Amino acid sequence: MSESKQLHSIDEKLDKLSINDQKDVYKILNGVGFQSLALPDTAKEYAKINNLELAGYEYPSKVEQLRSPRIVKIGAFQNKLPLKTDAPIAQMRDALYKLALEAITMASLAEVNVFCFQEAWTMPFAFCTREKQPWCEYAESAENGPTIKFLQNLAKQHNMVIISPILERDETHGDLIWNTAVVIDNYGDILGKHRKNHIPRVGDFNESTYYFEGNTGHPVFQTEFGKIAINICYGRHHPLNWLMFGINGAEIVFNPSATVGELSEPLWGIEARNAAIANGYFTVAINRVGTEIFPNEFTSGNGKPAHKDFGHFYGSSYVAAPDGSRTVGLSRINSGLLVVKVDLNTCRQIKDHWGFQMTQRLDMYAEALQKATNLNYEPQLIIKK
Amino acid sequence: MSESKQLHSIDEKLDKLSINDQKDVYKILNGVGFQSLALPDTAKEYAKINNLELAGYEYPSKVEQLRSPRIVKIGAFQNKLPLKTDAPIAQMRDALYKLALEAITMASLAEVNVFCFQEAWTMPFAFCTREKQPWCEYAESAENGPTIKFLQNLAKQHNMVIISPILERDETHGDLIWNTAVVIDNYGDILGKHRKNHIPRVGDFNESTYYFEGNTGHPVFQTEFGKIAINICYGRHHPLNWLMFGINGAEIVFNPSATVGELSEPLWGIEARNAAIANGYFTVAINRVGTEIFPNEFTSGNGKPAHKDFGHFYGSSYVAAPDGSRTVGLSRINSGLLVVKVDLNTCRQIKDHWGFQMTQRLDMYAEALQKATNLNYEPQLIIKK
Repeated sequence: MSESKQLHSIDEKLDKLSINDQKDVYKILNGVGFQSLALPDTAKEYAKINNLELAGYEYPSKVEQLRSPRIVKIGAFQNKLPLKTDAPIAQMRDALYKLALEAITMASLAEVNVFCFQEAWTMPFAFCTREKQPWCEYAESAENGPTIKFLQNLAKQHNMVIISPILERDETHGDLIWNTAVVIDNYGDILGKHRKNHIPRVGDFNESTYYFEGNTGHPVFQTEFGKIAINICYGRHHPLNWLMFGINGAEIVFNPSATVGELSEPLWGIEARNAAIANGYFTVAINRVGTEIFPNEFTSGNGKPAHKDFGHFYGSSYVAAPDGSRTVGLSRINSGLLVVKVDLNTCRQIKDHWGFQMTQRLDMYAEALQKATNLNYEPQLIIKK
Repeated sequence: MSESKQLHSIDEKLDKLSINDQKDVYKILNGVGFQSLALPDTAKEYAKINNLELAGYEYPSKVEQLRSPRIVKIGAFQNKLPLKTDAPIAQMRDALYKLALEAITMASLAEVNVFCFQEAWTMPFAFCTREKQPWCEYAESAENGPTIKFLQNLAKQHNMVIISPILERDETHGDLIWNTAVVIDNYGDILGKHRKNHIPRVGDFNESTYYFEGNTGHPVFQTEFGKIAINICYGRHHPLNWLMFGINGAEIVFNPSATVGELSEPLWGIEARNAAIANGYFTVAINRVGTEIFPNEFTSGNGKPAHKDFGHFYGSSYVAAPDGSRTVGLSRINSGLLVVKVDLNTCRQIKDHWGFQMTQRLDMYAEALQKATNLNYEPQLIIKK
């Protein structure tokens, strides 16, 4: 399907219903937690001038007696590639940095505190090709690569935590490549990094050709704007991955992704939202946008003819709250920023309300999983005598 | 809100969109897996005469070379109470048995193989009251209580596996009460039972006043129509509960429930569906219907005045497939039967496709949970030095 024929969003379709019908549908589909957030005119003008989508929502704060509200503005940026996939690497990077600068400037105008890019935002999502060159050249150090240095300045300048999912080159360990998210704090210092825990082997997601399952566990980063974690892309299909970030204390878990059309779109609204519910934190699902066409053809292991594109990355970035509410998503077709204002006190409030952590029986499952991983495990299968 | 003002379903609202718009919306909202299933005229007539809703869907079978299709028709029944909550217990039971007979007869006409009732279907959902009498009198033996005996005959007669979620009285262990689902096979024999693993303490769900967390683990029942398990109600909020049924080999997991309005409705479409995706099995979410008004008033721990009703049980029963597709739901207001035809071979096909089990890293999580349950656990929290 050509780019121009891509659906904008299902919300554009639902807009055709009467206001009352929309209200009924959204109440059940999206929950009642989020409201529209007025954004500064400067941010809106900046978005317009730069041809970027911009949307704002807030989850209203509830007052406690002993804790002050901990208000945080989350920024989730989704984007198309600014150049064709086969642009020289330095040019592509420069064009992406230009776009990133716009995104962060706009986020700053919208008073964002914690900003996150999509997965592997510094490059085309070239893993479909299984070609090692030139794509591996996009890999860079998480500690002193050009992207990190570029962002450190911006983070400090805008007093903003920035999460940068990149292709990492680990020069101190045999030049290994990893799929990594780097957390830069609001002083421009690198707080740490997390490597993608679960690597897909499905459709055109040939990432296991390039990097292994991450070895950084489930770190939660203590920032001035709350405790945050990153569940990279395919990790969102794994409830245990989400669970461990929750156990380690995360209040916001970002899910920078790159995923396409029919493969995952009906799952997109489900998984990050389920994780927010089950674990009592906010989740931020961010997906790449647009169709990326590569120079050489490749096949998809589905019997269909060779082709040169990965399919349509459908954007639709959204935020989910611990009560199961979600924001409307960004569009399926445009680069843009979603700004969501939340009170992190909400997490504990909703955990107290639902009691999922109290009723979790973690000890029973620790024992059950230990048994299940035994080579001689006998499933609890009830067979008629 | 009075019963008559309750919304029928969001699908009734979406029907107001043009066919093309509906197609776009449903493709993203519900996925593309399920199609409408033509049901026998006899079943449709029976439904009409008895004033019951009836809907059919199928997930088309894909041919394999070495395995024959394993086609199963699932029946999910949701119902209102036929009498007022304070009807004498024997009368209530008789009225419910009459309704159950209709449901199973209709299911038989629709050629259902595995049939499941809603949670605690033999009684009002009286746990909101915290009154022990008369409600505890509804508890009965899972092995030789009146409900099981009544259903054993029907199961044999209709060659149908029947799952019966009841309030269990365990006379051999100190007269304990449990929230239990009994599995009767298609020969009328009791295959076994499962006790609800996770008990809520939220809103009006005062179930922990009556029974404890279940002690039956995560059994999967081998029937002639596939390997089935039951995740009772609140257990659907716990991804680990769903996970263990998957590890033990379940192909269909039923989620008989009783849940109301604003508390859980935005979560309803998320959790059973997420479980189907993550674990590669079909899930069957069944919810009670109607508003149950009790003789004495009670409070809900939310500062609001005492009242006599539990809120509206919103029905909306549906089936989800391992690829994330879901059927349209039954209505929010009527008693009815959802019939869904699936090929159990689909489970393995989709597990092979997505690879979630292969990429699950269960050993890592077994170790992580073991550590996390240690009293001296130190979360992996990254703090700036």
